[in-house]
Amino acid sequence: MEAERTLRDEEITQLGELAAQLRVDAIRCSTQAGSGHPTSSLSAADLLAVLISRHLRYDWAEPRGRANDHLIFSKGHASPLLYAVFKAVGAITDQELVDSYRQFGSRLQGHPTPALPWVDVATGSLGQGLPVGVGIALAGRHLDHLPYHVWAVCGDSETAEGSIWEALDKAGHYGLHNLTAIVDVNRLGQRGPTELEWDLDTYRRRVEAFGCQAIVIDGHDLAAIDEALGRARQSTGPTVVLARTVKGKGVPEVENKPGWHGKPLKPDLAERAVKALGGVRQIRITGPRPEPAPPADTRAGEPPVLPRYDRGAKVATRNAYGDALRALGSRPDVVALDGEVSDSTRADEFAKMYPDRFFEMFISEQQLVAAAVGLQVRGYRPFAATFAAFLSRAFDFVRMAGISRADIALSGSHAGVEIGADGPSQMGLEDLAAMRAVQGSTVLYPSDAVSCAALVAQMVDRKGVNYLRTTRGGHPVLYDNDDAFPVGGSKLLRGGDDDRVALIGAGVTVHNCLAAADELAAGGINARVIDLYSVKPLDRERLLAAVRDTGGRLVIVEDHYPEGGLGSAVLESLADLAEPLRVTHLAVRGLPTSGTPAQLMDQAGIGVSAIVAAARASI
Amino acid sequence: MEAERTLRDEEITQLGELAAQLRVDAIRCSTQAGSGHPTSSLSAADLLAVLISRHLRYDWAEPRGRANDHLIFSKGHASPLLYAVFKAVGAITDQELVDSYRQFGSRLQGHPTPALPWVDVATGSLGQGLPVGVGIALAGRHLDHLPYHVWAVCGDSETAEGSIWEALDKAGHYGLHNLTAIVDVNRLGQRGPTELEWDLDTYRRRVEAFGCQAIVIDGHDLAAIDEALGRARQSTGPTVVLARTVKGKGVPEVENKPGWHGKPLKPDLAERAVKALGGVRQIRITGPRPEPAPPADTRAGEPPVLPRYDRGAKVATRNAYGDALRALGSRPDVVALDGEVSDSTRADEFAKMYPDRFFEMFISEQQLVAAAVGLQVRGYRPFAATFAAFLSRAFDFVRMAGISRADIALSGSHAGVEIGADGPSQMGLEDLAAMRAVQGSTVLYPSDAVSCAALVAQMVDRKGVNYLRTTRGGHPVLYDNDDAFPVGGSKLLRGGDDDRVALIGAGVTVHNCLAAADELAAGGINARVIDLYSVKPLDRERLLAAVRDTGGRLVIVEDHYPEGGLGSAVLESLADLAEPLRVTHLAVRGLPTSGTPAQLMDQAGIGVSAIVAAARASI
Repeated sequence: MEAERTLRDEEITQLGELAAQLRVDAIRCSTQAGSGHPTSSLSAADLLAVLISRHLRYDWAEPRGRANDHLIFSKGHASPLLYAVFKAVGAITDQELVDSYRQFGSRLQGHPTPALPWVDVATGSLGQGLPVGVGIALAGRHLDHLPYHVWAVCGDSETAEGSIWEALDKAGHYGLHNLTAIVDVNRLGQRGPTELEWDLDTYRRRVEAFGCQAIVIDGHDLAAIDEALGRARQSTGPTVVLARTVKGKGVPEVENKPGWHGKPLKPDLAERAVKALGGVRQIRITGPRPEPAPPADTRAGEPPVLPRYDRGAKVATRNAYGDALRALGSRPDVVALDGEVSDSTRADEFAKMYPDRFFEMFISEQQLVAAAVGLQVRGYRPFAATFAAFLSRAFDFVRMAGISRADIALSGSHAGVEIGADGPSQMGLEDLAAMRAVQGSTVLYPSDAVSCAALVAQMVDRKGVNYLRTTRGGHPVLYDNDDAFPVGGSKLLRGGDDDRVALIGAGVTVHNCLAAADELAAGGINARVIDLYSVKPLDRERLLAAVRDTGGRLVIVEDHYPEGGLGSAVLESLADLAEPLRVTHLAVRGLPTSGTPAQLMDQAGIGVSAIVAAARASI
Repeated sequence: MEAERTLRDEEITQLGELAAQLRVDAIRCSTQAGSGHPTSSLSAADLLAVLISRHLRYDWAEPRGRANDHLIFSKGHASPLLYAVFKAVGAITDQELVDSYRQFGSRLQGHPTPALPWVDVATGSLGQGLPVGVGIALAGRHLDHLPYHVWAVCGDSETAEGSIWEALDKAGHYGLHNLTAIVDVNRLGQRGPTELEWDLDTYRRRVEAFGCQAIVIDGHDLAAIDEALGRARQSTGPTVVLARTVKGKGVPEVENKPGWHGKPLKPDLAERAVKALGGVRQIRITGPRPEPAPPADTRAGEPPVLPRYDRGAKVATRNAYGDALRALGSRPDVVALDGEVSDSTRADEFAKMYPDRFFEMFISEQQLVAAAVGLQVRGYRPFAATFAAFLSRAFDFVRMAGISRADIALSGSHAGVEIGADGPSQMGLEDLAAMRAVQGSTVLYPSDAVSCAALVAQMVDRKGVNYLRTTRGGHPVLYDNDDAFPVGGSKLLRGGDDDRVALIGAGVTVHNCLAAADELAAGGINARVIDLYSVKPLDRERLLAAVRDTGGRLVIVEDHYPEGGLGSAVLESLADLAEPLRVTHLAVRGLPTSGTPAQLMDQAGIGVSAIVAAARASI
């Protein structure tokens, strides 16, 4: 650990020069682009100059080095400053910065994304960088046991997001001494003053009440910044540096003035400002490097032994999730999280066996997903679970995880009206629509325990956002333990050459489809039954065959609202088909109430009798 | 205002009897139902006994009386207690309580919904009742100027939700002395101890730091409760009563024991417990009634004069939103809110003209939507705006608003890749999927300023969750100011008897479709162009005609990911059609970057040339 140091005059001068360069470059690139947020960059330039010169331990040539500190720009709109930093450390050239910022095809996008190797996660939806930083710091303190530090640069406006307080609360709870938030309190938001303006004392009290050390400084006093960051690194708990700054600092014509958020300086003003700041510089700094880390533990662990189930036994898929997750725990890179409902989602199966790799996030679903994103930054394979309905609380975080190309597994339990008496607030009925619409996502909805376990096992190494939808109640095991359930596949449960209609379900409705097929068969009608356990990607070939064999007679049944779910997935997949379809789409079209699962499925028109009727009507 | 009073022994005895009845009834109904949360009810029974007997000013025979206080069960799972309260005040019978709780067809659902006239909003997704209460209290203090008080009964677990802190922050900011949160700190969550357990001092410090008065009490001390609630009502700011309680209080076998969350007592245990609590009672209490309120101001205000635009002028639909909203401000029941981006969403047009009816929610989208829900409880017509991408932050709140049958208008600006240089984090590309999947929702996406203004004018009186998607850039006005744009309708922009293909767009892609139709026409191909400005409900008749006239050749073009959006809406609508479709679905299939709007639309394959190519390929 470094002791606190007082900066020499010469060092102050050098830092000032660097800060001036960062300001100049932030102005230049945004003026050249004709858009961007220079004033939000200028306020934090001194903070970044000191951070990268003296505190951020980072090997810029090895951005994936496991000993590196992490720098997260939670205030992602200040990308001109971040990219100016990348120039100052030699990661990008001056030309790339000035010529390509915000241009089509450039990796220097309007808000940072991991298209840049030094960026862990996409930011730009405010209040997300710090919660992700909590996830990284959890890995550092509780899993990696490495001395890297997580530095999250936050705006003051984003402290109005509840997610910031979820993050600080968890940082305190988990003793994340390796996490520092640096809040650039520049007093001005987009459309005017922030709620707290320069009321640093209120910020301080909030931060301290949430279990973190607060250090209040003048964010333009280089020595004060240096001392604060040094103290933050040596702290025994998480630290929030509350830096009073001036928006637009260094350009008197815009300093602390409203109306300058997200506006580049016009070329003439930019030219004057750059000149006043001492002109263009090409300072190249070398900040501290991390101590080499011991080699990563690359042991694969014991091969997971997936649970096996007896055919016909009634097992809830949420139980299979828990069983499979516990089995996957033999891999040391698998970690699990839950939103205080692990006895319902069955994540507690993992928690009991691997308590050191389980993180209780309590009832804060935003932080639950953010922590998963942070853990995958460090190479872990996180599985995060809560009720399907409550993952909607974190939808913006899931959306941003998609943009970050984060590899995470999410499990939403208690899907649909099948849950019964608890009523609509607890029913995930829009989750398939939302999760399918996440860029690069995978959406899985198994009907039985065997297929569920097999899919969980595939989620562990699958790229992107992977969503598993599980069911509350026990339903019969349909498959053999050695059956294969590839993502993108489906299962033909009933079918032959003379099928007159295809019944298509996923999850709980597969069971209803099977019962309906039995009833139809008793009446002399052969019905094909397809288990579309992979909702995204979808098994188009299976659907094409069903269309061909049945004359396009499909009955799609889902325990979900009619918009955007399984029915839409099937229809999207078949949209270009120049053959007639006669699709009947059974879904939950009204607002459900309490009742038994059977009552509610019947009421919604997704029960056995409704399926039988729809099939009969279609032929 | 009442002075603080000390309870007489006789009053204490009566309150104790009532609390015992509430406990007994909560046990009876949940045991009879075989599910529910009795222990979470038992902990708060004393709080409710005092509240309803001595502080809640409510005319139970007139649940919509405008002078009534508001009681919100933020901890909605404690519905047995709430319904026991309804029995105690004579609103429901003992028989309805015990026989119908959680039964199919009953209004006494597992979690409260406004199917009950005394319930303002559905709760059960934790951390939402208090934020909605902030909205009601905003109406009371800043609009109605009536002395009603808002009492939000919260659980301790839900304080882990960031939304609780967004709510307390706004309560302090807006000086909501008419709001009291009563937190039932019973130490035990669903799966074990809460994060803070009985650390009341930390709760207190957090509450105070967020600008509210904190009163810490023993939640089973009836006199202390009474004094606290009296102080809360007389406070000059918002109050949080932090009540230390025992989960399961009154039933020693379950008191303060883990493993009893969400579990009814078995019949034998229930019987013993009821007996020990003194048996079944039929106490009927009469709490305080509100002072009669002056008659509501029912003036309709001046008829709104909608903005008019010159055909061909380039006007962003977000500007039309602001213009129309300002025009609607002539109605005194119209209020507006924004998430600190009103200069982007153009809600600032309303804010400038009607500052008293505009509420700045800063960057807290959950509270933004919750406040809108609360304002509509009081009969206001709220319009809440932020970027379309950032409404995803509040998706759980929108979901619950649908279950509450709340009548709210949401505007999401900056939709799609059309925004250009800011990059994917700022682009709403999954909003149509998410908003369509909300129960009872309406989804509108106008292509020009005239249609946008006309749709905004219809949103004001439309039931349910109404979502408007607006575009950042200026695009030509397409319609005459006197054209009609009914919700559920569409516009035929090009078309005749010999159309060979139909180009279907909404919002910005309508303009691309028009340009493509011109190019196709120049090549001798007549293409129909349909503006599906009403995405939900959808104009099926227009689509059927297009299918019939073009042989099913539809090119659907949307600035949205391919899942769940406009394409899905069209396909869902036509799913049952026994005629062949040849749909080409153009949507944003990759992860966008920065660039100009034209570059990004071309890259995504939703630009003019892609539409022309798709149309040519289809015929």
